[in-house]
Amino acid sequence: MMQSITDPTLLLDEAICRSNIQQMAHKAESNNLAFKPHMKTHQSAQIGQWLADEGVTAITVSSVQMARYFAEHGWTDITIAIPCNIRAIPVIDELAANIHLSLLVNNPQTAQQLHDGLTNEVAIYIEIDSGSNRTGLQVENLPAIKELVSIIQNLRHLNWKGFYSHPGHSYDARSKNEIRDVHSSVIEQFQQLRTTFSDAPGPMEICIGDTPCCSVATNFDGIDAISPGNFVFYDLMQAQIGSCQIGNIAVVMACPVLDKYPERNQLAIHGGAIHFSKEAIDTGHSTHFGIIAHRNNDQWAAKDDAPHLVRLSQEHGIIQCSKDTFDQYQVGDLVTVLPVHSCLTAHLMSKYQLLGGEEIYQM
Amino acid sequence: MMQSITDPTLLLDEAICRSNIQQMAHKAESNNLAFKPHMKTHQSAQIGQWLADEGVTAITVSSVQMARYFAEHGWTDITIAIPCNIRAIPVIDELAANIHLSLLVNNPQTAQQLHDGLTNEVAIYIEIDSGSNRTGLQVENLPAIKELVSIIQNLRHLNWKGFYSHPGHSYDARSKNEIRDVHSSVIEQFQQLRTTFSDAPGPMEICIGDTPCCSVATNFDGIDAISPGNFVFYDLMQAQIGSCQIGNIAVVMACPVLDKYPERNQLAIHGGAIHFSKEAIDTGHSTHFGIIAHRNNDQWAAKDDAPHLVRLSQEHGIIQCSKDTFDQYQVGDLVTVLPVHSCLTAHLMSKYQLLGGEEIYQM
Repeated sequence: MMQSITDPTLLLDEAICRSNIQQMAHKAESNNLAFKPHMKTHQSAQIGQWLADEGVTAITVSSVQMARYFAEHGWTDITIAIPCNIRAIPVIDELAANIHLSLLVNNPQTAQQLHDGLTNEVAIYIEIDSGSNRTGLQVENLPAIKELVSIIQNLRHLNWKGFYSHPGHSYDARSKNEIRDVHSSVIEQFQQLRTTFSDAPGPMEICIGDTPCCSVATNFDGIDAISPGNFVFYDLMQAQIGSCQIGNIAVVMACPVLDKYPERNQLAIHGGAIHFSKEAIDTGHSTHFGIIAHRNNDQWAAKDDAPHLVRLSQEHGIIQCSKDTFDQYQVGDLVTVLPVHSCLTAHLMSKYQLLGGEEIYQM
Repeated sequence: MMQSITDPTLLLDEAICRSNIQQMAHKAESNNLAFKPHMKTHQSAQIGQWLADEGVTAITVSSVQMARYFAEHGWTDITIAIPCNIRAIPVIDELAANIHLSLLVNNPQTAQQLHDGLTNEVAIYIEIDSGSNRTGLQVENLPAIKELVSIIQNLRHLNWKGFYSHPGHSYDARSKNEIRDVHSSVIEQFQQLRTTFSDAPGPMEICIGDTPCCSVATNFDGIDAISPGNFVFYDLMQAQIGSCQIGNIAVVMACPVLDKYPERNQLAIHGGAIHFSKEAIDTGHSTHFGIIAHRNNDQWAAKDDAPHLVRLSQEHGIIQCSKDTFDQYQVGDLVTVLPVHSCLTAHLMSKYQLLGGEEIYQM
């Protein structure tokens, strides 16, 4: 299969990906959590089917377009996990006519305009900023949360469903223990909210969504649902954080070697910023965009002295080898490179090639 | 037109873009340079037509696929300005049957394998590493250059054409004078090469390709052709380097405001790493991914206190305002953001919307 590859190609190991999915589905089940995986990482109906194979019936997406794509592929319970975009209300209304659609609403104006523009009903989470300082209301801001809940409950087209949070500050962790500290603080905040809203009419759902916490945490008291995304593929960033091992990474970029530069032990490859993205890992003493991997026991592995992708232009990549490793590569070889951030790499590549050669397409 | 925009949209000002094209075409003409613009920035047949309108007949691209796309749109003289990928020889041969195709070959093995695999003839530039340390041979390595020229001249399917260089180290410049210093050193290197190969049989072409030098330099002695790409749109990086003014930037991202966070004077927008790319500008005391622009005299402009795009997730962007500017924006507004690197933003967006509403597609 590698023989036929001529251009930068995103390889996907279906067995590793399905194993990642099974593990997370099992973890959700054994913790009595609804499992609503985020599809933004793979953006593919076929990989969505692998999730359905594990019993998934509800999913999470990051845009109205992505919701439409998965609705067209048969998904009927979708959360759009980005603050509701009131400019897109007509498309949202169309979607809400056909599926159970959940949205994030974080301010009264959005709630009112959404209600006014809809003819169909939608479910509403209020987003909680549990520490990432990106979007959502902070638990300390209880008066604003209570007011918003009350506004939503009084709007006929909006059905308040509960709280959603993406604890993205877990990405600042650099060990499992640091991830667990983030998670504990998130759990504590939601237990507080749950107590406050214990007399809310009807069921209230609390859903959290980051891959590091969902991968590492063992206590989900007070949480009803999880919506991680990256875990289907994992990547070097997750390995650096401590949420996976290299062997859990399901995707690599296969790139042709174009030139060799012995005076600096560097390879030039076809594979640049439009393939990998410019997401970098800062190791403290250097920055890189990927690490060369080899196959070992049906997994990808990286040796201690594995060459690093140290520089990216639009289509060029420069790989730094040691003197010893440099001689192993020839012009015309394919190198396989573990990506720093598989979500961005997958988005840029827009399709996958399975190890048997079959191609899988994205939206 | 802005009224109808619901999602992150790349706006293109045709008048500014055509003016950028006219200026570069005029500069090439008045310096007696062949003008072979790089299409990797826009990747669009329609914008290619705007170049053709200024008399362009030869173009530069960064991949075999891009060469095929522009060949299908009628271009017959194309240089693929990345070291030749010998895994793609069959596609290269197909292309070479129909157009005048020029390639970059930097090592004897590629030359030989290319010759062996081709049935049609191709023109060959040897790439010179004029200081960026990315790809190509250094002028000091004259024996290797001479040997490679001789190898190419002895291979029937390869016609040695001259030397090509992308002086990418001009991107490290932070003023026009620093760009001119880079350019002077490049000119000097090529004058040396020209002298060395003065007795080469037939014409020898020297082509250089970066937007900063091509925008700022005034002396092109010894250079035969230029192939800049970014100049069609320019961007904040070029403005920072000194190769353009903000008013020359032809593209902005229009993004909906989703939420407002008064406690930190931040706006959340729909517009993230999959729209802007993660290319950042480091100003010395902070890092950003774009600056909010407004229209002024048929150009985009950025006030001194213009809010900056300070954080990107996959689809979310966070814009930092001052206390004063924060109040000017409402949930549901569109903000227009000048991109850091228009090539990567354009690639991610894959289409443009003109100010009159018409859409222009990429390959």
